[in-house]
Amino acid sequence: MEFQNAHILSAQQLNTEDIEKILRIAVELEPIAQKKLTSDLLRNKVLAALFYEPSTRTRLSFETAMNRLGGRVISVVGMDNSSLKKGETLSDTARVISSYADVIAMRHPDAGSLTEFSRGASVPLLNAGDGVNEHPTQALTDIFTIEKEQGRINGLTIAMVGDLKYGRTVHSLSYLLSRFSVKLIFVSPPELKMPDTVTAHLREKGVYFDETQNLEEAIRKSDVLYMTRIQKERFATEAEYRRHHGVYVLTKGLIERCNQHILILHPLPRYGEISSEIDELAGAAYFRQVENAVAVRMALLYLLLGDGDND
Amino acid sequence: MEFQNAHILSAQQLNTEDIEKILRIAVELEPIAQKKLTSDLLRNKVLAALFYEPSTRTRLSFETAMNRLGGRVISVVGMDNSSLKKGETLSDTARVISSYADVIAMRHPDAGSLTEFSRGASVPLLNAGDGVNEHPTQALTDIFTIEKEQGRINGLTIAMVGDLKYGRTVHSLSYLLSRFSVKLIFVSPPELKMPDTVTAHLREKGVYFDETQNLEEAIRKSDVLYMTRIQKERFATEAEYRRHHGVYVLTKGLIERCNQHILILHPLPRYGEISSEIDELAGAAYFRQVENAVAVRMALLYLLLGDGDND
Amino acid sequence: MEFQNAHILSAQQLNTEDIEKILRIAVELEPIAQKKLTSDLLRNKVLAALFYEPSTRTRLSFETAMNRLGGRVISVVGMDNSSLKKGETLSDTARVISSYADVIAMRHPDAGSLTEFSRGASVPLLNAGDGVNEHPTQALTDIFTIEKEQGRINGLTIAMVGDLKYGRTVHSLSYLLSRFSVKLIFVSPPELKMPDTVTAHLREKGVYFDETQNLEEAIRKSDVLYMTRIQKERFATEAEYRRHHGVYVLTKGLIERCNQHILILHPLPRYGEISSEIDELAGAAYFRQVENAVAVRMALLYLLLGDGDND
Repeated sequence: MEFQNAHILSAQQLNTEDIEKILRIAVELEPIAQKKLTSDLLRNKVLAALFYEPSTRTRLSFETAMNRLGGRVISVVGMDNSSLKKGETLSDTARVISSYADVIAMRHPDAGSLTEFSRGASVPLLNAGDGVNEHPTQALTDIFTIEKEQGRINGLTIAMVGDLKYGRTVHSLSYLLSRFSVKLIFVSPPELKMPDTVTAHLREKGVYFDETQNLEEAIRKSDVLYMTRIQKERFATEAEYRRHHGVYVLTKGLIERCNQHILILHPLPRYGEISSEIDELAGAAYFRQVENAVAVRMALLYLLLGDGDND
Repeated sequence: MEFQNAHILSAQQLNTEDIEKILRIAVELEPIAQKKLTSDLLRNKVLAALFYEPSTRTRLSFETAMNRLGGRVISVVGMDNSSLKKGETLSDTARVISSYADVIAMRHPDAGSLTEFSRGASVPLLNAGDGVNEHPTQALTDIFTIEKEQGRINGLTIAMVGDLKYGRTVHSLSYLLSRFSVKLIFVSPPELKMPDTVTAHLREKGVYFDETQNLEEAIRKSDVLYMTRIQKERFATEAEYRRHHGVYVLTKGLIERCNQHILILHPLPRYGEISSEIDELAGAAYFRQVENAVAVRMALLYLLLGDGDND
Repeated sequence: MEFQNAHILSAQQLNTEDIEKILRIAVELEPIAQKKLTSDLLRNKVLAALFYEPSTRTRLSFETAMNRLGGRVISVVGMDNSSLKKGETLSDTARVISSYADVIAMRHPDAGSLTEFSRGASVPLLNAGDGVNEHPTQALTDIFTIEKEQGRINGLTIAMVGDLKYGRTVHSLSYLLSRFSVKLIFVSPPELKMPDTVTAHLREKGVYFDETQNLEEAIRKSDVLYMTRIQKERFATEAEYRRHHGVYVLTKGLIERCNQHILILHPLPRYGEISSEIDELAGAAYFRQVENAVAVRMALLYLLLGDGDND
């Protein structure tokens, strides 16, 4: 795809070449994300961070990426402070924000919101999470982390564990991985299975995947274990949430018994799914993921804003 | 007036010469607002954006203006995060914020708040909306847009439509227009008529104005149609709000039938008052207004902060 | 202590030499805080301002300090926008934020929170108020103000008035003053006395202190009067709060009758404890304190981030 001025709404937009381009630039920008080098690459550019849903990490990750590239940030946090409250259409908001910013990163609790917003956006828009739908910049971070830690993506067996129904990161990650030669294992309670839209896509692309409730077996068979949080905010009732929370908990004993070399990822925040004693394992990569995320978002901001000659 | 270090609390402060000066500088700074040029004009200056009332567009507009001029921004959004909650006087808050910022843009739900705040402010203060009272920087944007679109202000007939009682933008716009040779038509339900303070001012200045409920006739007679939103938050009860919402709705048919060349403005957000099919009309200038607002606020920040030799 | 990369969690960490070093650098950076000089000392550095408790002044003070030194700021305001809501441990949050920022300033309603957070923080952490426990950067500001206004700290008699039990600033100030040769007078209702942990520390350090309910006598005996607010949010019930609010109110008459040369400090916001007629007295230094706070926080940011060769 042509990145300059494009919207990144779904991981489905990105083919292998696109993904590799993003990862290549992320590698180049990594020393800036790691605070080893400084940069003014996006000087005089303005990012609008529109977070219509509580978020700390993703918003700060984007804001950090923009600031460390020398750009500026304007932010909206929470529904209360938004014109949405006043009944404005997302398309109108998009036209307005496009007058201010050079690029927009947006999170919204409703699945279709980003698409609606994109209709009015005349500057590039990055999906930073749209309800239970997708979270493509997180999935790119996941891919980047896997490649960095394992040296490759092709040939790997990757297990995704937890709430696969409402977990938007595993949707986007599945779409991205469908571009590679991998085996997927989906571990979840039956009620929280990967949605049909995702599995249909995988079948169409000829990606092998298995669905199971057996975490232990999945750990034995996999190179990468992608844990997710059971997200309270996705359930209608407290009771429904409580029934699922705590179903899959990773302990050090379990890892050591089944597969001590497995790479463990998590989009964070974790809420008990990964025991803190696991943090010291070499394969526990979830905090390295956080740092990688800044580099990946830098790469996306840079690609969407062009190489500076659109100043 | 002498702009440097002045407070802009009301449109009434500005005479024709002042308005023209602001518009002239806004024209000069427009390429920066339009992202065509970059600037460090206000490098090392700090804007405090104090928004004690929900707002997205005005706050982001000010923050964008400051950022694109190379300055920095510190923000307070919402009552909850403020010391106001702790019972501090506005004058005390003003003295404190004056120690931090070089210039302050402030919105507050109470009409007299800005004046009270200004007593403690030792740096220039910009009224970004004080309850139902005024919104001078929006009105300057409106004037700027009219002049840009029509080539002049003098000689025009301008209709203002909707909630003229609680709509602070039309108050400030009326004050500004009283400095020019214009005819005004105020279209509203009887309960939402332009306040006496404004009409008395217009009479004193010898400005012709007409008050009517007839939108269609106003469209026929006017060069400019200034639509406003019926603002839910200004009414005591939901019922009172519902009674007025939807009284004046602009459709494409109405415009084409009555006056297809009319210039249509709206401070936004709109909430159904302007049908989206109107957006494609040449005269639909409300989204261009948004871009103009950044240039106008840049001009104000620049004027209040002086020309850089107060570094 | 070695400042570079250190956490400043408590005033107890700082010995006389440390305090003097901070004050010395604050004096050097003061012209920048006072907007007389500009700086790029912390260019390319990122401050994370994490305020899990309502705050305007301390957050904006830190953000101003960072911005005026050329650095960048990312902010979290209020519990609602935080991952804490999602049940993440403070240590996890700290590891994440450490990937983004070069330095963190944090406020939290719980006393032990900063210590817990510091376990995960790999970048320097500044305590910006942890519940009823401490507020060391405010206390450093107080010391800086006393030295600036009186020319010395040793030999002074300093009275602290109000809610000494829940008032974190007076705890930190007592710890700092225990490094100097001073006399302290604690004026409070019996239920709001200085906590035992603080008085035990003072006894151990051999600092003279007196506890009384008599404000008038304290004013007569002191060189410095440190007023505090009775903080509503620290009391379990409205009734308990109301019983204490308004116990100690400073009037101009009282000051003129008892000790017209006394230096009056207050961490602000004030809530009636100091009558506004006092503002005009030469000894009323609480608004100068606000300006001093920016310089002191600049000094801390500079010291923790090193002298630039860690770029």
